[in-house]
Amino acid sequence: MGMDRLIDKIIEYKNPTVAGLDPKLAYVPEYIRKECFAKYSDPLEASAEALLCFNRALIDALYDIVPAIKPQAAYYEMYGWQGVRALTETIRYAKEKGMIVMTDGKRNDIGATMEAYATAHLGVTATDAGEVSAFDADMLTVNGYLGTDGITPLLNVCKERDRGIFVLVKTSNRSSGELQDKMIGSKRVYEVMGDMCEAWGADTIGKYGYSAVGAVVGATYPEQLTELREKLPHTFFLVPGYGAQGGGAKDVCGGFDKNGIGAIINSSRGIMCAYQKEGCDEADFAGAARREAIRMRDDIMNAIASR
Amino acid sequence: MGMDRLIDKIIEYKNPTVAGLDPKLAYVPEYIRKECFAKYSDPLEASAEALLCFNRALIDALYDIVPAIKPQAAYYEMYGWQGVRALTETIRYAKEKGMIVMTDGKRNDIGATMEAYATAHLGVTATDAGEVSAFDADMLTVNGYLGTDGITPLLNVCKERDRGIFVLVKTSNRSSGELQDKMIGSKRVYEVMGDMCEAWGADTIGKYGYSAVGAVVGATYPEQLTELREKLPHTFFLVPGYGAQGGGAKDVCGGFDKNGIGAIINSSRGIMCAYQKEGCDEADFAGAARREAIRMRDDIMNAIASR
Repeated sequence: MGMDRLIDKIIEYKNPTVAGLDPKLAYVPEYIRKECFAKYSDPLEASAEALLCFNRALIDALYDIVPAIKPQAAYYEMYGWQGVRALTETIRYAKEKGMIVMTDGKRNDIGATMEAYATAHLGVTATDAGEVSAFDADMLTVNGYLGTDGITPLLNVCKERDRGIFVLVKTSNRSSGELQDKMIGSKRVYEVMGDMCEAWGADTIGKYGYSAVGAVVGATYPEQLTELREKLPHTFFLVPGYGAQGGGAKDVCGGFDKNGIGAIINSSRGIMCAYQKEGCDEADFAGAARREAIRMRDDIMNAIASR
Repeated sequence: MGMDRLIDKIIEYKNPTVAGLDPKLAYVPEYIRKECFAKYSDPLEASAEALLCFNRALIDALYDIVPAIKPQAAYYEMYGWQGVRALTETIRYAKEKGMIVMTDGKRNDIGATMEAYATAHLGVTATDAGEVSAFDADMLTVNGYLGTDGITPLLNVCKERDRGIFVLVKTSNRSSGELQDKMIGSKRVYEVMGDMCEAWGADTIGKYGYSAVGAVVGATYPEQLTELREKLPHTFFLVPGYGAQGGGAKDVCGGFDKNGIGAIINSSRGIMCAYQKEGCDEADFAGAARREAIRMRDDIMNAIASR
């Protein structure tokens, strides 16, 4: 119910972070790419296989210390249906290892079409040969611009299958304010969206007080993060923007409640490309990812403890 | 440049409509489903093959009278990567037949991630074995909630490869007003989004006066459609909501400029499921789709002529 499964895992691991798996081919060590391109003649199949090898090794290195992965759908789609197959395999592999999977797809549509997205990513698809899961993630990021019609189909799946969603509220990018900071009466657009999250989640609140409807709030806007934590007591936050985008541990502290829960902080490039930054042998890329994941965990846990 | 390729085709065919290919298995005639489920043991592969057979026959029946198809990504994702492969094949087939392909994905993200979506759907993907197109549509629907950072990567691809995008402005669903109709100063949220479309498209205006940045405006809000047509002179409209959602030919008229261009009207279920409504033999599903496409074309062209 609500965000319980995710929060249980965060508490068990004492680690409120998620590893973003947004693999471009350029992030994958050359020896893996060479192997895959020697094996497959279709460039997209070879690329997708390289991503999958990369992801599996990262998951192996992280699953006992990091509670969740957040694969970003765009990077898989960039490599065609072959890439989307690699996404499917990545999700399956991470779940086998006990990780929570938060697919970052920012999907949005209405009625029957949103139902199709909900079914695709969180539900089970009916076929003439029985029901089968297409992607089977635990959570999905979504865009609420279309209003309640675009969210209701997700809530049904969340309730039936104990899943969750994260609605874009205040995104981490520089131009997020163009629309999101505009005033609607006495409230900003992102506050209006945040209020909608509280309303949408109202009857899915779990044992920690958080509903199945979370919000995406960027680490690059620490004041808004703190403000929204106070205003949205039942809305769990997915916080992008730590690391490569410029957010630090102090910036994300405001996302946590007085019990030190209420948010999960994402790092993608920071973890995936740790071996490049560290300058270690590329064959040690997974080791470098683990070292960076531990550093990030300690960085954030220390910042929370010392506020 | 701009929407020229699409408008050329609309003028050539005297038909400002697009066939939405949003195929659920339930829409596919039983004899096709039986064949596919007999052939493939994987339920998702069998389903995807059924969608593809259905789509190919529809395209065969429509390509010489309807300028474009609009496949809705959600319905393909519902059948897993196998469904996404069927989307890829559908796009390829329609383009071989000379149709314009408008992928309805409502994608949105920022920076490098939005670049990945732009590359995936409209661009070419770099791999270690050369560049290759992943989906290769002509146009993509997108969600502008994240602001300019989420749109710029698309504009680059639009300029380089003569592609277009449609930004959600005023959607056709009942709850679209929850956010979109709210007032920001003296303007509604959808007007603010519309103004951004005009700005984003400013340097991609083609020979008909329309830029590469179009807008999605629902047929179910005819007043707003008329209002936006006047206020956004360089923004071409993709208009959902005709037919099954309740919009009629008179409702969509306001989307067209004084020259009778400026909009393309979508029908999905109306065309795909025409055989069910008509009650004809299911083997004639493509014929029924063609009859409905002609009826819709005439309905809308007559309404434009008699306003």
